[in-house]
Amino acid sequence: MRGRCLIVFIGKHSFNGFKLSYCDSFLYTVYSALEWVPFLARLKGFQKLTSIEEALQLFFGRVKIPRLGAVTVPLHEALSRVSAEDIVAEEDLPRFDRSAVDGYAVKAEDTFGASQFKPKILKIAEKSEKGSRLARQVWTGNPIPEGADAVVMLENTKQIGDKIEVWIPLTPGENVSKKGEDIRKGEVAVKAGTRLKPQHLGLIAALGNKTVKVAGKPVVAVFATGNELVEVGASLEEGKVFETNRLVVSALCRELGAEPLDLGIVKDNVDEIREKLEIVLKKADLVITTGGTSVGASDLVPIAVTKVEGSSIIVHGVAMRPAMPTALAVAKNKPILILSGNPVAAMIGFEVFARPLIQKMLGVKGEVRPFVKARVTRKVATTLGRKTFVRVHVFQRNGELFAEPISARGSGAISTMTKANGYVIVPENREGLGEAETVTVYLFDEIAIRD
Amino acid sequence: MRGRCLIVFIGKHSFNGFKLSYCDSFLYTVYSALEWVPFLARLKGFQKLTSIEEALQLFFGRVKIPRLGAVTVPLHEALSRVSAEDIVAEEDLPRFDRSAVDGYAVKAEDTFGASQFKPKILKIAEKSEKGSRLARQVWTGNPIPEGADAVVMLENTKQIGDKIEVWIPLTPGENVSKKGEDIRKGEVAVKAGTRLKPQHLGLIAALGNKTVKVAGKPVVAVFATGNELVEVGASLEEGKVFETNRLVVSALCRELGAEPLDLGIVKDNVDEIREKLEIVLKKADLVITTGGTSVGASDLVPIAVTKVEGSSIIVHGVAMRPAMPTALAVAKNKPILILSGNPVAAMIGFEVFARPLIQKMLGVKGEVRPFVKARVTRKVATTLGRKTFVRVHVFQRNGELFAEPISARGSGAISTMTKANGYVIVPENREGLGEAETVTVYLFDEIAIRD
Repeated sequence: MRGRCLIVFIGKHSFNGFKLSYCDSFLYTVYSALEWVPFLARLKGFQKLTSIEEALQLFFGRVKIPRLGAVTVPLHEALSRVSAEDIVAEEDLPRFDRSAVDGYAVKAEDTFGASQFKPKILKIAEKSEKGSRLARQVWTGNPIPEGADAVVMLENTKQIGDKIEVWIPLTPGENVSKKGEDIRKGEVAVKAGTRLKPQHLGLIAALGNKTVKVAGKPVVAVFATGNELVEVGASLEEGKVFETNRLVVSALCRELGAEPLDLGIVKDNVDEIREKLEIVLKKADLVITTGGTSVGASDLVPIAVTKVEGSSIIVHGVAMRPAMPTALAVAKNKPILILSGNPVAAMIGFEVFARPLIQKMLGVKGEVRPFVKARVTRKVATTLGRKTFVRVHVFQRNGELFAEPISARGSGAISTMTKANGYVIVPENREGLGEAETVTVYLFDEIAIRD
Repeated sequence: MRGRCLIVFIGKHSFNGFKLSYCDSFLYTVYSALEWVPFLARLKGFQKLTSIEEALQLFFGRVKIPRLGAVTVPLHEALSRVSAEDIVAEEDLPRFDRSAVDGYAVKAEDTFGASQFKPKILKIAEKSEKGSRLARQVWTGNPIPEGADAVVMLENTKQIGDKIEVWIPLTPGENVSKKGEDIRKGEVAVKAGTRLKPQHLGLIAALGNKTVKVAGKPVVAVFATGNELVEVGASLEEGKVFETNRLVVSALCRELGAEPLDLGIVKDNVDEIREKLEIVLKKADLVITTGGTSVGASDLVPIAVTKVEGSSIIVHGVAMRPAMPTALAVAKNKPILILSGNPVAAMIGFEVFARPLIQKMLGVKGEVRPFVKARVTRKVATTLGRKTFVRVHVFQRNGELFAEPISARGSGAISTMTKANGYVIVPENREGLGEAETVTVYLFDEIAIRD
C-alpha cells in the first residue's frame, strides 16, 4: 500500500485551503475531484510540502546572511579556514630567474652542436661574469648569473681542471625557472572564498605573508528537544533514549568550519523552547534544533518560534525523504533550522539546508562534495513526490565503481550512515532506481577498494 | 632532446658497479653496449632509481611502525581521529520496539480489509492494554505497547470520540522500528582503524558511550635545510627565498591527524643536520626533512643520517617525477623521510611516502583519496621510466568530468598545486597521456562545476 495511499496536506496557517499532493497519479486524479469534501479539512495533516529547490530559494531569499567579521590568523592556524579577501602577489614568484637543476649556468648558444663525442668546452667562471664560453656552477634554486640563459645538468658535463665539457646542446631558457613563472606581480594568488588547503598556505607564505585574513567562524547554537531524551551515559528509564543529535550536528558544523555551541536538551514545552530560543538568538549566528516531534507536535519548535517577536516560519515540511518535517524559519534576523529528531533525517536535513547556509556565511565558493558515477547493485524503491536520499556504500571492484544501497526501514537507524559512504538523490518524479543503473553518488566518506 | 639524452645512474655506495637506465629504449640498447666504458664511472651521477612500489616495500619492510599509546577522549573531541579498538554494541539498538511514525499502535490483523470508505473502528486505549481492537496513541520513538505490532499513521485515521477509524490495512511490523534493527547486541558498531566521522560519533553515543579510545597522534618532526632559506616575512637578500615547506608539510600532517613539530631551518652543513637529527629522533615518531640540495649535495641529509648511530639509508632516488631525489631512511628505529626542497616535489613525496606511513601509525584502514574518472583536455608528455604525477584541474561540464593538465615547467611552482585539484599517475612505461584519454584522478580539493 505504501506510496499509494492518500496523503492529505493541509496548509498550516490557513485551514480554509488545503491541497492534495504527491499521491499516486491515478489516485490523485480521483481524489482531486473530492477536494471540496468538507470532512477532509478536519483531518490531522502535515504541512503542504515544499520542494527542496523552492525551500532553498525561499529561505535564502528571506534570510539575511550575517557579515561575520574577518580575522587575521597566522598561516599555521589557517588550515581549512576560508580566505576573506583576494591575496594578490606583491612580487613575481620566483623573484628572479633561477636554476631548476644542479649544474652549470651557460649561454645556450655556446652549447649548440655539442654531443658526448664532440663536447663543447667552457671555462668555469669563478663569479658572475659576462661574456661567452663561460659556465658557472649553480644549484637548484640559485639565481641565474648575468649573461647566462640556460643551465646544463651536472650529469651532462664533465669537469676537467678549470673547464667543463658540455655534452648536449641547450635551448635558451632550458632548466631555468623564469622570474614570475609561478605567479606574476599583481596576479590574484588565492581568491577570496577559498577553503585553504596546505598548498594555498604554501603559496601565501611564498609571497612573504605570515598571516592571512579568513572568515570568522559562524557560531551555531544547537539544542535538542524531546521529553524522551536523556544525556548520553545517564541511566535510561523505560522509553528513554540517549540524545545524540547535538553531538552529530556539532561535528558537522566543525567539519565545515563553524563553531558549535551546545545548548543541551529542552523539554517538549513551547514556553521552554521559546525561552531557549530568545537566549540563543542573542549568542548565535544560526540556530539549529532537532526533534520536538515526540509529543505528537511536529510543530512544537515552529510554534515556539512564532512566539518570538519578529519571527516567521518560511518553510515547514519539505518534499524529501528522509527529513520531510524539516522547518526553516527566521527570528531577530537570524536563521533557524528545525531539523527532525531522527538521527538520519537530522543529518540529511543538515546536508541540504545547513551546509549551504554555513558555506554562505563563510563566503566559501564552489565547494561541492566529491561525487562519482557508480552502478547500483540492486533495485531501490522510492516514493513519488519526494526527493529521496538513498544511502549507499560505494566500492571499487576490478576498477569499476559500484553503489550498494544500504537497507534500512526507518530514518532512525544511524548505523545506515556509518555503513554508507555516500548518497544518491532520486528525483521526485521517479519511483526508484533500476538494477545496475548508473547513478551519481555524493561521497561523505572514503571509497572502499574490494579488488 | 629531453627524455632522449643519456642518463647514467651510479649506485651510490658501490662505485664498482653502475647501471644505465630509463633512457629512450633505442639509446638504451646502444649505450648498454658501452656499459664497460671506464670513464662513465667517474661521472657525477644520481643514485640508482628505485620504483615507487619497491621503495614502499623496502621501506615498510624495514621500518618498525611505532605502537603509539591509545588515548581516551570525549566524543565531542574525537572528530577525525581514528578508533583504536572495535566498539561493540553492549545492547540492542533500538533498545525496544518503537514507533517510526506518529499515530496509533494497533494489532495489524484488526486493520485487515480497512479502506477509507469501509474503515475499521478501534477503541482508543488509555494505557498499555492487551487485547484486540484497541489503538493507543504513540509518537515517533515511543515504545510499542504490548499487544500491538504495527502503527497506523495519524493521517490514515480519524478520531471520533474515544474511537478511531482506520482507513488502511497494515501488515505486522509496519511503521515499527524493531529492537536491534539498527545494531544488535554484540555486533561491532565501529571497527578499530575507522576515521571517525560525525555519524560514527552519533552511533557510539547512541550505544551509551561518552568517550572513545583513539590512536595517539604520531609526532612528526619537520625541518628544512638550505643556506638559501629564510623565514617567511624576513628580509630577502639576493638569491634567498622564503622557506615554506615546513608550513605545508605540517599542514599535511595535521590533515591526516598527526602532530607536527616545527624545528626550523638548518644550514647546509652535515654536522648541524646530524645534531638536529639526534635531537629530533628523541622527540618524534617520524622525521621529515625537506631540501638540502642547494649546495649541490642532494646527499647532504642522507650523509648526515648515516652519521647517526644505527642508521641506514633504505632508498635514495625514486623513479618518479616530481620527487625523484626523495630518500627513505631509518635511525634509532625511527623512520626518516628526506623530501626534495622543491615545494611540489615535497608535496608529492609526502603523498606517496609520508601519507601511508602516518596512516599505518594511526592504524587507519582502507583510507584512500576520492578518485574520479575524467577525460584529459589535452595531450601530456611524460618521461619513460618515471612514474609521473600530472597535476590536473577536474571540472564538470554538462554532466561530464574533464581533467585539465596544469602547465608547469618545474616542480618549484607551488601555484600548480593550487590550480590543480587532483593528480593523474602516468606509469613508467608510458610517454604521456593521449588527447581525450579517460584517466583516474585522485582528488585533493573540490571538483569545480562549470555547467
